[in-house]
Amino acid sequence: MIKKDILLSPGPTQVPEEVLLEASRPLIHHRTPEFSNIFMDTIDGLKYVFQTGEDVYLLASSGTGAMEAAVVNLLCPGDRVLTINGGKFGARWAKICRAYGVEAQEIEVPWGDVYPKEELEQELKGNPDLKAVFSTLCETATGAVFDIQGYGEVVCRTGAVLVVDGISGIGATACPMDDWNVDVLISGSQKSFMTPPGLAYIAFSSRAQEWIERSTLPRFYFDVRAARKALDSRTSPWTPAISLIRQQKKALDRIRDFTLGRLIEHHRILGEATRAGIRALGLELLAKHPGNILTAVVFPEGIDGFAFIRAMQDKYRAYIAGSQEPYKGRFFRIAHLGYMSGYDILTALSAVEMALSDFGFENPSGKAVAAAEIILKEHWK
Amino acid sequence: MIKKDILLSPGPTQVPEEVLLEASRPLIHHRTPEFSNIFMDTIDGLKYVFQTGEDVYLLASSGTGAMEAAVVNLLCPGDRVLTINGGKFGARWAKICRAYGVEAQEIEVPWGDVYPKEELEQELKGNPDLKAVFSTLCETATGAVFDIQGYGEVVCRTGAVLVVDGISGIGATACPMDDWNVDVLISGSQKSFMTPPGLAYIAFSSRAQEWIERSTLPRFYFDVRAARKALDSRTSPWTPAISLIRQQKKALDRIRDFTLGRLIEHHRILGEATRAGIRALGLELLAKHPGNILTAVVFPEGIDGFAFIRAMQDKYRAYIAGSQEPYKGRFFRIAHLGYMSGYDILTALSAVEMALSDFGFENPSGKAVAAAEIILKEHWK
Repeated sequence: MIKKDILLSPGPTQVPEEVLLEASRPLIHHRTPEFSNIFMDTIDGLKYVFQTGEDVYLLASSGTGAMEAAVVNLLCPGDRVLTINGGKFGARWAKICRAYGVEAQEIEVPWGDVYPKEELEQELKGNPDLKAVFSTLCETATGAVFDIQGYGEVVCRTGAVLVVDGISGIGATACPMDDWNVDVLISGSQKSFMTPPGLAYIAFSSRAQEWIERSTLPRFYFDVRAARKALDSRTSPWTPAISLIRQQKKALDRIRDFTLGRLIEHHRILGEATRAGIRALGLELLAKHPGNILTAVVFPEGIDGFAFIRAMQDKYRAYIAGSQEPYKGRFFRIAHLGYMSGYDILTALSAVEMALSDFGFENPSGKAVAAAEIILKEHWK
Repeated sequence: MIKKDILLSPGPTQVPEEVLLEASRPLIHHRTPEFSNIFMDTIDGLKYVFQTGEDVYLLASSGTGAMEAAVVNLLCPGDRVLTINGGKFGARWAKICRAYGVEAQEIEVPWGDVYPKEELEQELKGNPDLKAVFSTLCETATGAVFDIQGYGEVVCRTGAVLVVDGISGIGATACPMDDWNVDVLISGSQKSFMTPPGLAYIAFSSRAQEWIERSTLPRFYFDVRAARKALDSRTSPWTPAISLIRQQKKALDRIRDFTLGRLIEHHRILGEATRAGIRALGLELLAKHPGNILTAVVFPEGIDGFAFIRAMQDKYRAYIAGSQEPYKGRFFRIAHLGYMSGYDILTALSAVEMALSDFGFENPSGKAVAAAEIILKEHWK
């Protein structure tokens, strides 16, 4: 049989053809009015998705680069901060802070759980010297969505700033930066932004902007002062990733036409259908507060997780994600993120059913698909 | 929700990305050694799929152009021929013949049925002046596959030639031209050849080649003598459709790597899975001898066929085909033709299930998908 690949990972995600084709256009120079228009339009589009009146800076980097940019532009050596770690990506905050001599007090949240704002409030009361709270909108390792709105309420009443990794979450789940008092918000091109990886985005609240001048951590490439200055000339300080920015502009045009509200609703429907399918198979969801970015599914007893993911990827060419250290082989993740349609969800669930059947799971065929179809068809308009 | 289109029609069919991208390469001139190499490689690939030692001519036309080329290159005004009409495309043979003053005796076969070789044998015995038999490998209007092997056995013992429209069938179902004594075989780029429409193919047996000189029907663009002569210079007589030929070469490279045997088996599996899905819903197949090109499904009582196809195309963006005059609104057709994978079949069946549910059909969700999954997963390797 001819086989086709299907990309179901939470980054990179699928990219619309018109966005892919944009990369095949001849390069233009970046110090031209033509590129400046594209660049500024892209920033406008990012501000729309971030729901902020502040500027959004574009970095030619992965999302991790923007995380580092947040740390080095805000803090000073020896500063104490709180980092909330509910998975592999939440854990990264403390690692970056410590690499720069920032003292990170890490809250370890069991994978799949979230951290209540009440506990954060207590923690901040007991530690008035904390300079910043680093959190994650959607923990990509588990699919759990954190209460950023609640954190914003709590943190804005203190002297600390709230920094949020919205890499996989922004665009897929609500997080209006200005309304929710988020001081630094980060994202990347390869999730709901429907663009290949290579660009990261970061915006600072007016309060956080004051911190940029006071920060004494060493920085050059990620120095936001350079980006801010270049923006006065409608450009970037270093050579921008021209073709990726063009692609991101194209995708943002599409997102603006579709509207952010519908994009979030789109993710809600796909998430609901996926969870309904998984539950119809009697499988367990990992996240206690599963979000609409991805669904993490605990392997049932008796199924070798490594072999299952290998079968999904090699035999069925369905690129679901496995779980990461220290939970490798314990669960798998299906993304419903960005440019996917109901058919991608149905296909993903069919692949899961076929693989489960191969692994001796009793009579899975059609069950997840049926449950998902019933939800999807109501919204297929 | 974001929606994605899915093309499930029996022409045009889906085209692999690498073949699509081939069309975006800069044009080269057609009177160059570079293009001649591409042109001759394409002919080699076509000979492989036609399973013939004879040359295959490329026409810049739809498949109908090659059908006309068969008629005008073989016959003389007033010739009597037999045409086998089991659907809209079988009916076209008599129309073309009559447009040129050829007397067509038409065998009308009920849609979905085929015509037994024994009856053809009787017909030829009773009409020894018949010059040609025009038939169809797969009738695209119904999905029925005709007994070309049997017709070849019967016709080769007479003075007539056997002309076969293999437009939707070649590559998807066996029809080795030389082994089965097919005198003229026709196909087109947009079916199992995995290329956009615009090219048609025609080959003549050595016996049929003698007829080309004797034919007195008027012809110019479709005059195969011009194509044959140009081939001595490794070119075509008129400007070839350069980009389409390049795409067809790319697709043929892929088909040769995959092998014709596996390509036919691929279609067999997809056909079997589709029929199993449809039967699991309790729906009726139109064709008594359903082939592996497409599946025609009779609408169940109480479902408005026009509205159903509109819902499939507009709401679910699943481009199945309807039925044609005089049976419009009576059945629908799902192709399993060319560059499709098991996921396309599962998606098609999901879309049918969701649409049936919208139309009040009781509890279809998951049934067809389950039956198809069970077949597909055994062959997903």
